[in-house]
Amino acid sequence: MNGAQSLVKTLLNNGVDTVFANPGTSEMHFVAALDEHPEMNCILCLFEGGTTGAADGYFRMKRDVAGTLLHLAPGFGNAFANLHNARKAGSGIVNIVGDHATHHLRYESPLKGDILGISQAVSHWTRVSSNATDVATDGAAAVQEARARNGQIATLVLPADTAWNEANTAANRLDTSESLHRPSMGDIEAAAARLVTPNVALMIGGSALFGPQRELAGKIAATTGCRLLADTLIPRISKGAGTAKLDQLVYPISPKISQLEATSSITLLGTDRPVAFFAYPGKPSVPEPPYCPITDLCMPTDDIEWTLRALADAVGVTSKTVAETHPLDLPDIPSGQLTLEKVGLALAALIPENAIICNESVTSGFHVIPPTATARPHDLLAGTGGAIGLCLPCATGAATACPDRKVIALTGDGSAMYTLQSLWTMARENLDVTVIVFANRGYQILRDELTNVGVASYGQNAQAMFDVENPTLDWVSLAKGHGVPGTRANDMDSFAKALSAGLSSDGPSLIEVVCPPPA
Amino acid sequence: MNGAQSLVKTLLNNGVDTVFANPGTSEMHFVAALDEHPEMNCILCLFEGGTTGAADGYFRMKRDVAGTLLHLAPGFGNAFANLHNARKAGSGIVNIVGDHATHHLRYESPLKGDILGISQAVSHWTRVSSNATDVATDGAAAVQEARARNGQIATLVLPADTAWNEANTAANRLDTSESLHRPSMGDIEAAAARLVTPNVALMIGGSALFGPQRELAGKIAATTGCRLLADTLIPRISKGAGTAKLDQLVYPISPKISQLEATSSITLLGTDRPVAFFAYPGKPSVPEPPYCPITDLCMPTDDIEWTLRALADAVGVTSKTVAETHPLDLPDIPSGQLTLEKVGLALAALIPENAIICNESVTSGFHVIPPTATARPHDLLAGTGGAIGLCLPCATGAATACPDRKVIALTGDGSAMYTLQSLWTMARENLDVTVIVFANRGYQILRDELTNVGVASYGQNAQAMFDVENPTLDWVSLAKGHGVPGTRANDMDSFAKALSAGLSSDGPSLIEVVCPPPA
Repeated sequence: MNGAQSLVKTLLNNGVDTVFANPGTSEMHFVAALDEHPEMNCILCLFEGGTTGAADGYFRMKRDVAGTLLHLAPGFGNAFANLHNARKAGSGIVNIVGDHATHHLRYESPLKGDILGISQAVSHWTRVSSNATDVATDGAAAVQEARARNGQIATLVLPADTAWNEANTAANRLDTSESLHRPSMGDIEAAAARLVTPNVALMIGGSALFGPQRELAGKIAATTGCRLLADTLIPRISKGAGTAKLDQLVYPISPKISQLEATSSITLLGTDRPVAFFAYPGKPSVPEPPYCPITDLCMPTDDIEWTLRALADAVGVTSKTVAETHPLDLPDIPSGQLTLEKVGLALAALIPENAIICNESVTSGFHVIPPTATARPHDLLAGTGGAIGLCLPCATGAATACPDRKVIALTGDGSAMYTLQSLWTMARENLDVTVIVFANRGYQILRDELTNVGVASYGQNAQAMFDVENPTLDWVSLAKGHGVPGTRANDMDSFAKALSAGLSSDGPSLIEVVCPPPA
Repeated sequence: MNGAQSLVKTLLNNGVDTVFANPGTSEMHFVAALDEHPEMNCILCLFEGGTTGAADGYFRMKRDVAGTLLHLAPGFGNAFANLHNARKAGSGIVNIVGDHATHHLRYESPLKGDILGISQAVSHWTRVSSNATDVATDGAAAVQEARARNGQIATLVLPADTAWNEANTAANRLDTSESLHRPSMGDIEAAAARLVTPNVALMIGGSALFGPQRELAGKIAATTGCRLLADTLIPRISKGAGTAKLDQLVYPISPKISQLEATSSITLLGTDRPVAFFAYPGKPSVPEPPYCPITDLCMPTDDIEWTLRALADAVGVTSKTVAETHPLDLPDIPSGQLTLEKVGLALAALIPENAIICNESVTSGFHVIPPTATARPHDLLAGTGGAIGLCLPCATGAATACPDRKVIALTGDGSAMYTLQSLWTMARENLDVTVIVFANRGYQILRDELTNVGVASYGQNAQAMFDVENPTLDWVSLAKGHGVPGTRANDMDSFAKALSAGLSSDGPSLIEVVCPPPA
């Protein structure tokens, strides 16, 4: 058994059975070892950002770790942006990065680079295996670290000789019963007392935003009268009928400040404090009123579920407490001229029960998402790190994790271009993803932001950098080139027809929504 | 004048008038400042790897620096792989990376990341501007560093407040008359004495590989009888009729070792020592025979031109010395069934005088490139850092630098997929690039390398990761989607017709060469 074989067996022993891969020569022995284990699901991505974004989407839905397979420092570079998103999402990922053989690193070969430097710039944990007999232990440690603190980025660098040299054995599953940090009972009681005072907010994150924990949070709000808050960009949130109501903070800073006006205190449970996405001249970096105290009851890396239960007990939630939830209220599907608001209504009407929506429709989403609040119950995943190009990879990973659920990817045309190669992986794996590209022919967010930072002018060079026109991207052809059937929707009837067709087929499809120019 | 305005003026004052950009909100003031200077050529790339690969291609042909505009750490991440290639090519690039405003960095906002960490993993020089009044000086220093030592990666991080706050003035052009290191006359004379001994090689790199310096190197070889060598992957080399003959080292290690058999000594002039691309079990990392001395006469960062002239004088090159050069010998254009060898002949017959070829046709190139040795004179640019995905961006930059020259991009289908977004920039800028995609439906290099590392098996998972099939990529549709006209060539007649048409039109075009399966 060589090091690569011991690593593959170790990964399987430790419950990692899915790898999103973009391998190169230094990973050949690892590839050969994967070959001996058809129970390992190897999914090829034609660009490394596709691997890490998919592993992120996989973790968000599966609540467990997938691997990525990357090729030296440049491969890690291509993977970086979606690792940044995954880090901000608190997703656990194990990156396996092949490096040159240890004895080869003294030479200035073309692919030699600073893998440690770039890995440490985004990973929580990085280790270089120093010989083949350590690879199993290192691999098990990497999986354990990826699962730690609710999910971390763990990177294991595998020099080629540690893969091809003789190893002893694989490592068994490490004991992963980790003791996450919990607040003291005094902190819980203080929070419970605070939540019954006027104008108080409980801001929740992580696992408190979906499933049974979300319901429990709703019951805490119902019992105390506190306002339930969530941040703007969150990894996963239950949406639609039956989900406990909460207020999600908006993206622009001025309305975000208005949302928190008169808030007397904010208690954080599983989330960081709210903050402006960017700084703007003369505007504050944080949205809460001056002197509004913020208490870190439970950090995103702490024991969120325990804290939620303890808090529910402390405020007096009982088996009879009922959370205020969204009703099921499906709009009619609008017809006629296409508008973003109408697209939102059609989407809300058609979202299948238990669907997963990956949303990176940056500006279009402001108009499209609101009606989905009373759609059939579903999960919504967003780009947490602000690095655009997450949507298609994330949808790929979510569909891999949940093959029995429908996935809808909402993306701007600007965003989708960063990682469009994921379309091919969707086709190769026959993933059940309906991609909706909002083609507003530019970086609409930048058009808006130029005003936000106080710049009034908009001339030739700005236009050249904000508009994706001359030529216009043809998304139907781009989809076809990747093996995905595509349709262009110019009006509501063609959109509703294409969406229905996409959702009733089993494989991927793409709809280019030709957005009307902004009013 | 704000910091952004002072930076744009400083860049122009220092001779930087081209910026390959993928901006975001933190760069809005910089965009506004660019707007005031239409003499600054701003070229939008839809993925950051397009910006840095283009700046690399621009430097290789223009021998001067272009800027890139990037958005925080994730933007730099996407730019990393082609910066790695540029670093290995010795190309000078100035990266301007927008960061959050200084006072905003204390908060865990979505896009906050370790810009310094990732930049330092690939840049020669990184500086964070600490206030608006320093931006001009920092910008001038960045350009100077990018030009230093024959070309370096210089990264200037521009926190948003240093862009929007009031600055004093722009910086004038810094004195760039740098004294590059030169070998001693004793070293020159020792090298001259060595070059007349039997079986000796002079291995040249950098500016010695093209133009008048290449001719001078040829005269040194003619005078001394030494063998002229060049490395495998080189940033730029003159090729075709009239260029001095030399032997270029091949990629695979075993034939590379054979190429250097019986070599008695190697003198390096403007290049690093030859090294195996990868290490392989039981094979050496370096190709030269044991005990073959290697002398570093002039490093790639030293004064190559001066060293070459001094060496020519020392060996007795005169105005009458004639270098042995390749003749003009254009093959007939083959017809019938398509083979890679025939494609090479057709290409050799049709390369226009003074064309620029960007070559990343990894395995196909082994068959296609040889006949071009006696084609019309042209320049050949290769991927120097082994990070695939350079070709299309590099061609974009080369065509921007040399609008009066024809550019031909040779790329594998696997390679082209990493940065296919550059097709759109070619269309937007109407760049005169003919793209030839060798569609062998997979990572042929990996199919070959699995054998090289001593792995004989090839099963389901390996196949899933080496073959880009099910579905097949449709490059004609991918090109169309980006606004580039495309053709599929299934035989030699359709290939020759498409290549002639591409070379006679002014804008971009793409030819998908459907490669026959390997014998």
